[in-house]
Amino acid sequence: MEPNQVNYSINHAGAFSNFGNVTEGMIKGKIFLKESLNLTSMEVSLNNLPPKGEIPFYHKHQENEELYIFLKGQGLIQVDGNEFEVIEGTSVRIAPDGVRVLKNTSASEDLHFIVIQAKENSLSQWVQTDGIILEQPVEWGKSVK
Amino acid sequence: MEPNQVNYSINHAGAFSNFGNVTEGMIKGKIFLKESLNLTSMEVSLNNLPPKGEIPFYHKHQENEELYIFLKGQGLIQVDGNEFEVIEGTSVRIAPDGVRVLKNTSASEDLHFIVIQAKENSLSQWVQTDGIILEQPVEWGKSVK
Repeated sequence: MEPNQVNYSINHAGAFSNFGNVTEGMIKGKIFLKESLNLTSMEVSLNNLPPKGEIPFYHKHQENEELYIFLKGQGLIQVDGNEFEVIEGTSVRIAPDGVRVLKNTSASEDLHFIVIQAKENSLSQWVQTDGIILEQPVEWGKSVK
Repeated sequence: MEPNQVNYSINHAGAFSNFGNVTEGMIKGKIFLKESLNLTSMEVSLNNLPPKGEIPFYHKHQENEELYIFLKGQGLIQVDGNEFEVIEGTSVRIAPDGVRVLKNTSASEDLHFIVIQAKENSLSQWVQTDGIILEQPVEWGKSVK
């Protein structure tokens, strides 16, 4: 660890229901996290697509796998011409070459979702092989910020 | 692309409010996605920690960066002895070496959150450099599944 480097960063984006009027880049209602958190392994966006909202273009990727996790509302996702209904708890992995697009099918409810992209085949270990559980007992209340 | 390989996979975990009784591995209320979706760049879990629930141990990682995204409820996350309040829209990046633990501080409400781990420094390009926008017009309704 470099001098003065800390092992964490925090972002408070607020409630998903308030994202509707945020514009970062070309798409309204999308908040990116990589830059604000200094993420080095993934780009992540928090999203609110309004009633009947549609992404207006197909896209694919060069080397990144993409994961969509749906949190609220109802929509359709299309990958390589196949369409699937999405609701709370639906997650969709898309390989870089998959041609994808998404829309909110509700006339009244926002569609809340998270999109994560990371480099395909980059993960070498996880949870039980990468995690290290420490033996020291957990203590709370020493430094609340 | 291999013969018969498709560019996507889908998982329907259901509502976060129903995760409370799920047990996968050692922690109740945690649903992992890597295996069911064949993810190759990240491990992801969908989580519901019950009122006053606490992770009972500190942990860190060997090579994976971790990102916590909070969706509902209120809690405290502790990294290297520093504690931070978390609510909907809070996201926390933790470097592999950060010693972390988490608890739900509400006596009545579940804490819903997503945890993503991916290999630190593995991302080489993103969004505008990795994404490819296609010129073909978007069409819907050809193959609803």
